[in-house]
Amino acid sequence: MNLEQAKKIVKDILPEKRYRHTLGVIETALALAREHGVSEEDAGLAAALHDMAKFHDKEEMKDVIKSHSLNPELLKFHHELWHAPVGAIFAKEKLGIVNEDILNAIKYHTTGRTGMSKLEKVIYIADYIEPGRTFSGVENVRAVAYNDLNEGMKTALKQSMLFLINKNQPVFPDTLASYNEYTQ
Amino acid sequence: MNLEQAKKIVKDILPEKRYRHTLGVIETALALAREHGVSEEDAGLAAALHDMAKFHDKEEMKDVIKSHSLNPELLKFHHELWHAPVGAIFAKEKLGIVNEDILNAIKYHTTGRTGMSKLEKVIYIADYIEPGRTFSGVENVRAVAYNDLNEGMKTALKQSMLFLINKNQPVFPDTLASYNEYTQ
Repeated sequence: MNLEQAKKIVKDILPEKRYRHTLGVIETALALAREHGVSEEDAGLAAALHDMAKFHDKEEMKDVIKSHSLNPELLKFHHELWHAPVGAIFAKEKLGIVNEDILNAIKYHTTGRTGMSKLEKVIYIADYIEPGRTFSGVENVRAVAYNDLNEGMKTALKQSMLFLINKNQPVFPDTLASYNEYTQ
Repeated sequence: MNLEQAKKIVKDILPEKRYRHTLGVIETALALAREHGVSEEDAGLAAALHDMAKFHDKEEMKDVIKSHSLNPELLKFHHELWHAPVGAIFAKEKLGIVNEDILNAIKYHTTGRTGMSKLEKVIYIADYIEPGRTFSGVENVRAVAYNDLNEGMKTALKQSMLFLINKNQPVFPDTLASYNEYTQ
């Protein structure tokens, strides 16, 4: 599958606004990939497909998490966290993507995890800073991510956790573990 | 062992300033225990002994963590987190404390954990709000903890995590797990 084919597939699945977000993530992921010596082909595909399960039926996502023995902790957290691991399953089973690095980049693009590959970091950060993002703090990550992927991850994870905790929201353990990795 | 005996023991171990802190934790723990139907005897003893390992030699604490198969994650974190679990071992082995609830209250007074008992919460909060504490936000916990232990825990854990993350410091996973419990 090439990037144009992947874009065509998600254009049919996603609402217009989320497709525009996806185009922003592709553009940003390609730029970060060039800067950090990551395969642009892999970055483009992972970016195109990262949100493919975003609007999938919640009950079906729950079934996929159970039937594929994904981390059962996910079900205790908001369904916003489900589309990334479920999207990786769909990319593999429905679209035949076999590259594990691309699948992991889709799987961990919302929570992060310890031991992320450069491609995983590129997709996590691209999703966070694509041109459509305007939230407070996004510039802090844009300012560092092209020079230093790890500094970009650290800043994005820090800001994400502060955002959630200030709103009394739970934080997925993988996100803390990923943040801790950059502070220790 | 009664409270007076425990105070005498830690007065000999701790520097003057830390002993004054301990007296503050005892006073606060007794008041919280009365308010929330917790044994004052247990609360007094746990409070008196909670910091008994605070100034123990770091290398020896490391050895205790290894020899007693305590959570090996502890060794990746600042030694500030070691004195609580090591103190519980000392209370048991050096002082003969056998009450598991008291030992757990000592063990988890710095990090918190999921499924804390009322006594564990009383000691965690008493350590956070004793009269000698003057940091920003301490009043938020004092204001709620006498009415609602869980609201006190939630506020203290939230503030602790925000404090650490704003300083780019790691957060122990048990602390997040405990916080998540109050938000889910």
